[in-house]
Amino acid sequence: MTHRPEHDDLPFQWRDVEVRHNDVDTDQKLTNLSLQVLFDNEHLECHVQFFDVEPGGHTALERHKHALAIVVLRGRGQCLSGAEVFDLRPHDLIEILPWDWHQFRAAPDDHLGFLCIVDKNRDRSQLPTSADLDVLVRHLGVAAFLAGSTPL
Amino acid sequence: MTHRPEHDDLPFQWRDVEVRHNDVDTDQKLTNLSLQVLFDNEHLECHVQFFDVEPGGHTALERHKHALAIVVLRGRGQCLSGAEVFDLRPHDLIEILPWDWHQFRAAPDDHLGFLCIVDKNRDRSQLPTSADLDVLVRHLGVAAFLAGSTPL
Repeated sequence: MTHRPEHDDLPFQWRDVEVRHNDVDTDQKLTNLSLQVLFDNEHLECHVQFFDVEPGGHTALERHKHALAIVVLRGRGQCLSGAEVFDLRPHDLIEILPWDWHQFRAAPDDHLGFLCIVDKNRDRSQLPTSADLDVLVRHLGVAAFLAGSTPL
Repeated sequence: MTHRPEHDDLPFQWRDVEVRHNDVDTDQKLTNLSLQVLFDNEHLECHVQFFDVEPGGHTALERHKHALAIVVLRGRGQCLSGAEVFDLRPHDLIEILPWDWHQFRAAPDDHLGFLCIVDKNRDRSQLPTSADLDVLVRHLGVAAFLAGSTPL
């Protein structure tokens, strides 16, 4: 049994949980986000992770065979999944299905923090080729999303 | 891909998610709580559930072989786990280990709502015998917790 509250002075950072700062380099742009693995228990088949994307930042555009269950906890942003773009706010649920391209973007003036529940036993992510990107940007709204110019 | 926001007028109730109202009868006391299964995906080894315990209510006192990963989303309350009692508030994390007795109680004047991430493939819960209860209440604070008389 473990009880891990947030630090009193650091919202969305939990006691005894390591904060890993990841730089994502996509299209020559560096963006800051952090990852905390909240639960990694030998008796549970899933990992529970928390991603915190800084204002204006984004995760990598990627796809994989495994699914993701997302619960937004903090801030505002958007999500690309498949060929659709969704506005996100706290407590929204997103299910990313196998092989759907996906990316999460924080609003320019707000964090986007979300739980990501994922099988421990999972494949590595794939990044898009230029041919993949050509197909993606034909969908309405996707080009603007990927350019970070979607109104929020 | 699915996007499920909360209903605008119903906090912690999500669009297209069934709300199951469970009555828990423990020690002759009925208490109200609801359960929503937020994610039950064929490509994910876990279920993500949301339990909402009404003010003054509680879950069953139980134990099982499977572990639970808990993320508090709403309100205030307490949790018994093993032989310890913890105050809970939003974003607190609780890991319930195999065979630890556990119970969640909402504050008298507040809901307690939490995510419960659990393996799909899991055993059934066990309820305590009177001998189990005799052992539990020897621990400091547990008798008061079980009687619902712990100050919050």
